[in-house]
Amino acid sequence: MTMVSELGRRAKAASKFLAGVTSAQKDQALVRIAGALTLGANKILQANAQDIEAARANGLTEAMIERLTLNHKRIGQMAAALEELIALPDPVGSVLGGMVRPNGLKISKVRVPMGVIGIIYESRPNVTVDAATLCLKAGSAVILRGGKEAIHSNRALVGIMCDALEEAGFPADCICLIEDTTRQSSQELMRLNGYVDVLIPRRGAGLIQAVVQNATVPVIETGVGNCHVYVDSSADLEMARRIVVNAKAQRPSVCNACETVLVHRDIAEAFLPRLFADLREHGVQLRGCKTTLAVLQQGETLPEGLTAAAEEDYATEFLDYILACRVVDSFGQALLHIDRYSTRHSECIVTGSYANAQRFTAQVDAAAVYVNASTRYTDGGEFGYGAEIGISTQKLHARGPMGLQELTTYKYIVLGDGQTRE
Amino acid sequence: MTMVSELGRRAKAASKFLAGVTSAQKDQALVRIAGALTLGANKILQANAQDIEAARANGLTEAMIERLTLNHKRIGQMAAALEELIALPDPVGSVLGGMVRPNGLKISKVRVPMGVIGIIYESRPNVTVDAATLCLKAGSAVILRGGKEAIHSNRALVGIMCDALEEAGFPADCICLIEDTTRQSSQELMRLNGYVDVLIPRRGAGLIQAVVQNATVPVIETGVGNCHVYVDSSADLEMARRIVVNAKAQRPSVCNACETVLVHRDIAEAFLPRLFADLREHGVQLRGCKTTLAVLQQGETLPEGLTAAAEEDYATEFLDYILACRVVDSFGQALLHIDRYSTRHSECIVTGSYANAQRFTAQVDAAAVYVNASTRYTDGGEFGYGAEIGISTQKLHARGPMGLQELTTYKYIVLGDGQTRE
Repeated sequence: MTMVSELGRRAKAASKFLAGVTSAQKDQALVRIAGALTLGANKILQANAQDIEAARANGLTEAMIERLTLNHKRIGQMAAALEELIALPDPVGSVLGGMVRPNGLKISKVRVPMGVIGIIYESRPNVTVDAATLCLKAGSAVILRGGKEAIHSNRALVGIMCDALEEAGFPADCICLIEDTTRQSSQELMRLNGYVDVLIPRRGAGLIQAVVQNATVPVIETGVGNCHVYVDSSADLEMARRIVVNAKAQRPSVCNACETVLVHRDIAEAFLPRLFADLREHGVQLRGCKTTLAVLQQGETLPEGLTAAAEEDYATEFLDYILACRVVDSFGQALLHIDRYSTRHSECIVTGSYANAQRFTAQVDAAAVYVNASTRYTDGGEFGYGAEIGISTQKLHARGPMGLQELTTYKYIVLGDGQTRE
Repeated sequence: MTMVSELGRRAKAASKFLAGVTSAQKDQALVRIAGALTLGANKILQANAQDIEAARANGLTEAMIERLTLNHKRIGQMAAALEELIALPDPVGSVLGGMVRPNGLKISKVRVPMGVIGIIYESRPNVTVDAATLCLKAGSAVILRGGKEAIHSNRALVGIMCDALEEAGFPADCICLIEDTTRQSSQELMRLNGYVDVLIPRRGAGLIQAVVQNATVPVIETGVGNCHVYVDSSADLEMARRIVVNAKAQRPSVCNACETVLVHRDIAEAFLPRLFADLREHGVQLRGCKTTLAVLQQGETLPEGLTAAAEEDYATEFLDYILACRVVDSFGQALLHIDRYSTRHSECIVTGSYANAQRFTAQVDAAAVYVNASTRYTDGGEFGYGAEIGISTQKLHARGPMGLQELTTYKYIVLGDGQTRE
């Protein structure tokens, strides 16, 4: 038995324990974890310093190092997030439906824990705590496979959480960390059928595709967002400008940020110069179609911050201060563009037309479809779900923000008094 | 572009049409299909005769030929099933939840069609009609990949259904049949990401495992049922006997049939002889553990219909008039046995103990957990869901009987008046 399958076996055993605990017991364990993280801050920061040192030695980018870095403030935020998690209602045990059948059978559909949840994620140590505690609250054991750059931090964080679990009378195996950060260990986790009930890859189109291609356990695809804002001919142009700028520039590195703006040609001349000026102020580069360039061109030369869009720009999740822009001839052409390039995450129309709002929400196939609001709202917190484990872009099981509820499943409990089938 | 990916493209295009039709339009199309199947009965039976002739020439078993065979009665049953399907409520469009956020955003979670559903199934032509019409009612296009032995029947059935669709103003591509029945075509279907939103394999542990191992599209695992009935020491033995015999012998070839009976040792001597006599009358062979053999032995020899159980018998889905039997020392040992061998389909306890009923339903991890009723009830019809596409044995998306609702997904519709995120 390999180390990964041994972890699978242990996590599965721990999941049986978790299936039997009360909400109060889980919350008590979370309280202990919050306290232990605060008390263990120096130990965590020491481990984190090792990771940062190695990251610098290996020439990681500043952005990657920034995501890897912990400090007292961030550890405080982890503990604060735990307080919020504790306050959320326990999804487990709620009755989703039921009936008494004509033969007297009483059938109820009851929410139960998933069992064992696998998470493969980038080198962000805060995800280690977020993911583990969300799974715990949802009643499942978790197997974590974090990025190799964060291994010292992850080991320290998981060590502290497991000690706290044991103090609360829980098996430490409720939170398992795969310490082997080779490619082989994540491949093994993807194929741990019988132990892993669902595997969630977080972040990075490459990682997510590797999981989709290689996993034999059930997977929830998350997080790639090639999101569009379509500015209809009937849009309030002032509102449209604010929405596009917010959707692009408020935080460009996240999956619900806008990557392409589509502009109806009837308002292109009135809208694009104002949009472009505002985007420039926010440091956003525009990559425009021919019509966009023609509208914004000053004499023979393109203004600074504007270049020609290539076909592949429309398919790119920039995650940066770059926005593609295309002028469309019609509402229908906007729908076709979105259908072709969308990753089915978040799509928006800015419109004053009731009919177009109705058509857009009905016909656009995405986890979240917006009328007259920024795509940046696709988020567990903004939806009022509290903490989230990610944004699902597939249609099976969960779509959009995945909170505690989406980390559970259900079973049917059938109570009889001797019924047999004829 | 291969034929399978071309079918994927066409099914995806048809799914856009289906996303926009009303319930009444779908029901009208189903009415036309029901009529066309009845009118086309002779054509269907001619095609079916070709399949049966080929099956006999290829030496298929009588059981396989029986499943392949259509006649006027069975075609009548298909049409009758369609009447029932038409009468079911449309799951699409129901609002699953929603809220107005403090910033005024109106969020609603709305049930929408899945898009394109792939079905890989055995050589049973009735599944062709059942699966296609269920998907249609659920608003999704379907790609069917049936067994090669039924190809003439399937071609005739799909041809008739597609003609009826077109008469109803629907694109024929709502129902696509992969006519190439090589292994390669099903492999391709399993990897048709971007076109297939969910793939459901029906029947056959080998087929299901092949799909789980090879698919890169989301899959719902169905139908393997190694189901147990545990007879507790506090059971009403008369009730227990009826339940075990029903769960085993009422229809042994189905996934919700019982494959192993576990008997508490305190009642083994009182219970086993009565159970064994009744099973024998129903033509069931018993494979017993040592204690079972000791209890039922007559002098030195084993009675007819009783043999010793091997370890692998406990792991076998017999789908036949064979039942494994094990005497357990305790309730806990019964739970351990079930946890080890269960395929998480349907599990039953027969008990008079409130505490044991509670523990069993809480701790047994299965789609349906029964107290004092036959496992044979795990079925869309018996649960009151009407038609079903299969029984899910995984935890993602759907568990247990999958009806119309389980063939859909949801999306969030977010209506704003200019909200941007701070």
